[in-house]
Amino acid sequence: MKFPIPVAVLGATGSVGQRFVSLLDGHPWFKLVALTGSDRTAGKPFKEGCTWVLNQSMPYQASEILLTTSDSENLNGAAICFSALPADEAKIIEPKMAKAGLVVCSNASAFRTDPDVPLLLPEINPEHIGLVKTQRQIRGWSGAILTNPNCTSTGMTVSLKALNDAIGVKRVFAVSLQALSGAGYPGVSSMDIIDNVIPYIGGEENKVETEPNKMLGKFLDGKILESDIKISAHTNRVAVVDGHTVVLSVDLNSEIPDKDVIEIFANYRAPELAAHLPSSPWPVMVYRNEVNRPQPKLDRDTGKGMTTVIGRVRKDPIFSIKYVTLSHNTIRGAAGGSIYNAELFVDQGLL
Amino acid sequence: MKFPIPVAVLGATGSVGQRFVSLLDGHPWFKLVALTGSDRTAGKPFKEGCTWVLNQSMPYQASEILLTTSDSENLNGAAICFSALPADEAKIIEPKMAKAGLVVCSNASAFRTDPDVPLLLPEINPEHIGLVKTQRQIRGWSGAILTNPNCTSTGMTVSLKALNDAIGVKRVFAVSLQALSGAGYPGVSSMDIIDNVIPYIGGEENKVETEPNKMLGKFLDGKILESDIKISAHTNRVAVVDGHTVVLSVDLNSEIPDKDVIEIFANYRAPELAAHLPSSPWPVMVYRNEVNRPQPKLDRDTGKGMTTVIGRVRKDPIFSIKYVTLSHNTIRGAAGGSIYNAELFVDQGLL
Amino acid sequence: MKFPIPVAVLGATGSVGQRFVSLLDGHPWFKLVALTGSDRTAGKPFKEGCTWVLNQSMPYQASEILLTTSDSENLNGAAICFSALPADEAKIIEPKMAKAGLVVCSNASAFRTDPDVPLLLPEINPEHIGLVKTQRQIRGWSGAILTNPNCTSTGMTVSLKALNDAIGVKRVFAVSLQALSGAGYPGVSSMDIIDNVIPYIGGEENKVETEPNKMLGKFLDGKILESDIKISAHTNRVAVVDGHTVVLSVDLNSEIPDKDVIEIFANYRAPELAAHLPSSPWPVMVYRNEVNRPQPKLDRDTGKGMTTVIGRVRKDPIFSIKYVTLSHNTIRGAAGGSIYNAELFVDQGLL
Amino acid sequence: MKFPIPVAVLGATGSVGQRFVSLLDGHPWFKLVALTGSDRTAGKPFKEGCTWVLNQSMPYQASEILLTTSDSENLNGAAICFSALPADEAKIIEPKMAKAGLVVCSNASAFRTDPDVPLLLPEINPEHIGLVKTQRQIRGWSGAILTNPNCTSTGMTVSLKALNDAIGVKRVFAVSLQALSGAGYPGVSSMDIIDNVIPYIGGEENKVETEPNKMLGKFLDGKILESDIKISAHTNRVAVVDGHTVVLSVDLNSEIPDKDVIEIFANYRAPELAAHLPSSPWPVMVYRNEVNRPQPKLDRDTGKGMTTVIGRVRKDPIFSIKYVTLSHNTIRGAAGGSIYNAELFVDQGLL
Repeated sequence: MKFPIPVAVLGATGSVGQRFVSLLDGHPWFKLVALTGSDRTAGKPFKEGCTWVLNQSMPYQASEILLTTSDSENLNGAAICFSALPADEAKIIEPKMAKAGLVVCSNASAFRTDPDVPLLLPEINPEHIGLVKTQRQIRGWSGAILTNPNCTSTGMTVSLKALNDAIGVKRVFAVSLQALSGAGYPGVSSMDIIDNVIPYIGGEENKVETEPNKMLGKFLDGKILESDIKISAHTNRVAVVDGHTVVLSVDLNSEIPDKDVIEIFANYRAPELAAHLPSSPWPVMVYRNEVNRPQPKLDRDTGKGMTTVIGRVRKDPIFSIKYVTLSHNTIRGAAGGSIYNAELFVDQGLL
Repeated sequence: MKFPIPVAVLGATGSVGQRFVSLLDGHPWFKLVALTGSDRTAGKPFKEGCTWVLNQSMPYQASEILLTTSDSENLNGAAICFSALPADEAKIIEPKMAKAGLVVCSNASAFRTDPDVPLLLPEINPEHIGLVKTQRQIRGWSGAILTNPNCTSTGMTVSLKALNDAIGVKRVFAVSLQALSGAGYPGVSSMDIIDNVIPYIGGEENKVETEPNKMLGKFLDGKILESDIKISAHTNRVAVVDGHTVVLSVDLNSEIPDKDVIEIFANYRAPELAAHLPSSPWPVMVYRNEVNRPQPKLDRDTGKGMTTVIGRVRKDPIFSIKYVTLSHNTIRGAAGGSIYNAELFVDQGLL
Repeated sequence: MKFPIPVAVLGATGSVGQRFVSLLDGHPWFKLVALTGSDRTAGKPFKEGCTWVLNQSMPYQASEILLTTSDSENLNGAAICFSALPADEAKIIEPKMAKAGLVVCSNASAFRTDPDVPLLLPEINPEHIGLVKTQRQIRGWSGAILTNPNCTSTGMTVSLKALNDAIGVKRVFAVSLQALSGAGYPGVSSMDIIDNVIPYIGGEENKVETEPNKMLGKFLDGKILESDIKISAHTNRVAVVDGHTVVLSVDLNSEIPDKDVIEIFANYRAPELAAHLPSSPWPVMVYRNEVNRPQPKLDRDTGKGMTTVIGRVRKDPIFSIKYVTLSHNTIRGAAGGSIYNAELFVDQGLL
Repeated sequence: MKFPIPVAVLGATGSVGQRFVSLLDGHPWFKLVALTGSDRTAGKPFKEGCTWVLNQSMPYQASEILLTTSDSENLNGAAICFSALPADEAKIIEPKMAKAGLVVCSNASAFRTDPDVPLLLPEINPEHIGLVKTQRQIRGWSGAILTNPNCTSTGMTVSLKALNDAIGVKRVFAVSLQALSGAGYPGVSSMDIIDNVIPYIGGEENKVETEPNKMLGKFLDGKILESDIKISAHTNRVAVVDGHTVVLSVDLNSEIPDKDVIEIFANYRAPELAAHLPSSPWPVMVYRNEVNRPQPKLDRDTGKGMTTVIGRVRKDPIFSIKYVTLSHNTIRGAAGGSIYNAELFVDQGLL
């Protein structure tokens, strides 16, 4: 495979799709060759079919690409496609693409829990990429489907990995304060969120309670052996544009001083398989010493939006410790994560 | 004591002070005769010394009252004073007033944890008012100090009372999403909260972890025997004007179906000592069946802001149940609560 | 016609429709007998077909009414129907209703500019109701269509009426800062308005530049003779839930001191035809002396949301004077205005 | 003078002060050597004395600088000082600095209207820098005071310059929707602006009505001959963090088609004296064709926050044209503008 590798974005006109387009602009390995939208926008140049909502300008090269429909089999020679499709469309379209030989790096939930589909956070579980071989055997695909987790699970799972490796994690209470961009565009009505909080996000709590155990699992004999941390989640929508905050109470296998927990976060390094990839977060986690951090407005762009920001480590009266994590939901938690997965795939010679 | 009873508000120009003034307007038992402010505003009529921030008009009668300083011993004949003072001023001024024979119904934290000072939510623990006798014996005061809890503890403790009576509560995880008015006025800078969340409120977590056990305690032999529920709290500030949301995971003494929990909340009634008082919430708790309620914007004014609104009762993967509570922080959680306390005091013939 | 008069709301599930339902609850003259929604919600009780967004509870009586489709000819015996339909549906459905003998009090723009359709603000032009006779003659309807103006024109036109009567108005610059509820529900995406302003509202500027001249016109010989004030408008959307603010520079026929302008506003009274109606604002206008008022959050509910609130009268360096108006857009500017129109119609014996 | 030139920031801990520190980090000509704060913070390193509110990290080099008081005469050898002082402190401190030989590039209003003090927007009036010679003659200073305009006047005056040069401007109505950062930190209370608009900013309207005429004036014989455009301003605060929107109606000397107006904006170039400076905006103005732009959230960072963004040029029913401008208030309208002024001063060999 010669560089740059031609890539496509499925569902490019939505909020996550736009992040893909923005992050792929100037990517050292990938070159955008196709964008898909709805029946209504197909045939239009991207700049006309898309209501751009990011505060950077729409990249010029992308702006001129003609939108096709998402079920098109002709993605202009793309070898990899990044999927920002809704789960129900992903269910149908992604396998079709994988069968046709494309590598689908998906942000959708449709296949995340399938045992032969890797659920990747390369800074913590890059070896799970090996599941692709199992997947190709079982499904007979020349392509593949790789997934990244739900945007709320992302930052908390990165932090749990470091604790689990060092001491062992038994139980977790996790409460999210989630950003609006996580609901897509137009997503949440302004009438529903100004001067308000919505203490419910459909399907989200179940994802937060199950996905981390797959991600923290061991890859053995072509399979994932899931970890068995008990997780209880409450998920809430708040009036923040980008950046999911999660407050956590964590029960550890043994009690250790707060300062040692902070060092565990600060000293964590991405495994060798992933650390050198272009999108690998550096550092993987930042610990803020200020008493009132992390905060989404101030910290979400840390490490180009790929770093998990942590603060407020302190004793918990019931479990071992409490702390706060913050992760950029449309970068680390969505588009940036999928691109990182694609880099790992290519770097492992699987393309 | 003849009705109406003359009352004063200490610290009347702040956000909670204004709520006192607003709620006392037209009160069936109390008549406002004095308002105190700072050195800077003393001598001015209330309408000039106060930047009014509520959306009801400033009551005409109050608007003409001349502000005095908060350490004035002459409160124009007031028998009861409602205190919206900051904790450090309350520490000095409130005992002086109580010594001088006034009943201080305080919203400040200064004396809440003193063993001889009642911490009241009359819809759950009106018998704690009996502690006033102990207090008068010990301190030799002809007046008294009564306190209401921290605004975040309020709604969650009401819900815990019903569960504790019916089944017994062992452990609680509580995470708040708190309104801006809880920080006073001017309080939180707009630059800090638009498009943001602040995962820290100074001193708040400790209050939420301890105050409920005093309120849920037994009054025996002139003392409070505190309950021993273990509570872990995370407190957060969000971009909501009024109404504190608290999400809870609760470990019960035995497991019961969700629908029985909902009935326990819905069937709870205020004790006879308190149920007939003018400010007694009716109903004490409202359970909303919608999947995404309670919400501060839609539910905070339920029962004139005195009712606790509950929703989303469901199984918890670690503890017994999860649910969401909402309580108006400057009405039930502050000014309305103090007035309710004063009504109980008067009704018990303690004035 | 016996009281209470049976009425219906067309398009009841939207943001303005809900205001109609809320304001009609307990109305002294009208009784709600029918509610219409979309094909999707028809057949469901209102409480199931409607996502209620107001902070008062859904009225019990309305909650049980079964929704029908908006083109139903059977409105359960309603004599008056209040229309919160979008303009394109109103264009088709409203005339059908009027032909069938119903009085349509419409909030839609579809017929506002038709010369035989009254555009009413009863506190300033109740005599325009006479146009109904012309309308019935021309169209052969036994019913009628009455309209209320665009929500942005409402408050500013009330203020201009007082000035025009007293001194004469020549030219007006009007710039709006409009609330989100004016765009309906779900309306504006939260992603578009948090930390933002949108300096464009489709079709709005033209309405603000033309509707006031019809409303300020003379009713003569069965026709409206429009006034000829030149108006230039800029319309903007801001992050406010309810309440449209309009800042105005006004060129008068002669210069008068600011204090006289303030008196003109404060002394204005609704004409006798309208002043006694249940929804007639009292006072019609309130002038706030504070330097930084009116403000939507503090002033929108003045006079139950029917009063126009004015402030900051001062000299203009180019025209005569500048000032600020505020009007509740879904009460005075929409549902409340339509109900007021219906009251005028009934009171004039036209039903 | 050798490069890099040592510079100081006066009032470095506030919102504009922080922008200075951020923009000076990595500046090709200037090196930060001193920072001043209040009596309370003097002696502390910047990272301890400053509550950092920007979303980029505090620059490391600045974080270690020890704060001094603003009236210190020893600014560690700085040749230029950037002033983010409040007007009353600026009045006293800035002349003292200028007398001591420093060049004060001030963001304060204290000296803006003095006839011998240049009020600079180098992309439109760089020749006004010549006023420094007059200033030094009159005041006998070896240093100097240069000012940049009020943040609301900035963008609109840039647009007016282009129109005035090409066609001539007679009269202007200008209405602002201003960001919160313009009020400093903590500035506007969150309680005052969530779900609200404040139609008043103290002293602002007078500045907007007068400053543009000084900036658009001719520099002749060592003096500014002010232009005589009549301006009427309404200024409003809205819930936006950064970026002032101004809507304008402009009366021109002759009527020209909208598309020619758009070309005048798009083709405008900074004069040769300023175009090559490091902070010179490129392009000076961007015209957005979308019907609903510019918007602060999407457009404020155009040209690194130094470009004026314009949209919605259309006919005005009273004056000639209407349009919308947007300018970043703490970059182009404050810190970035002062740095641009300093560059012009240095480049002209005046240091």
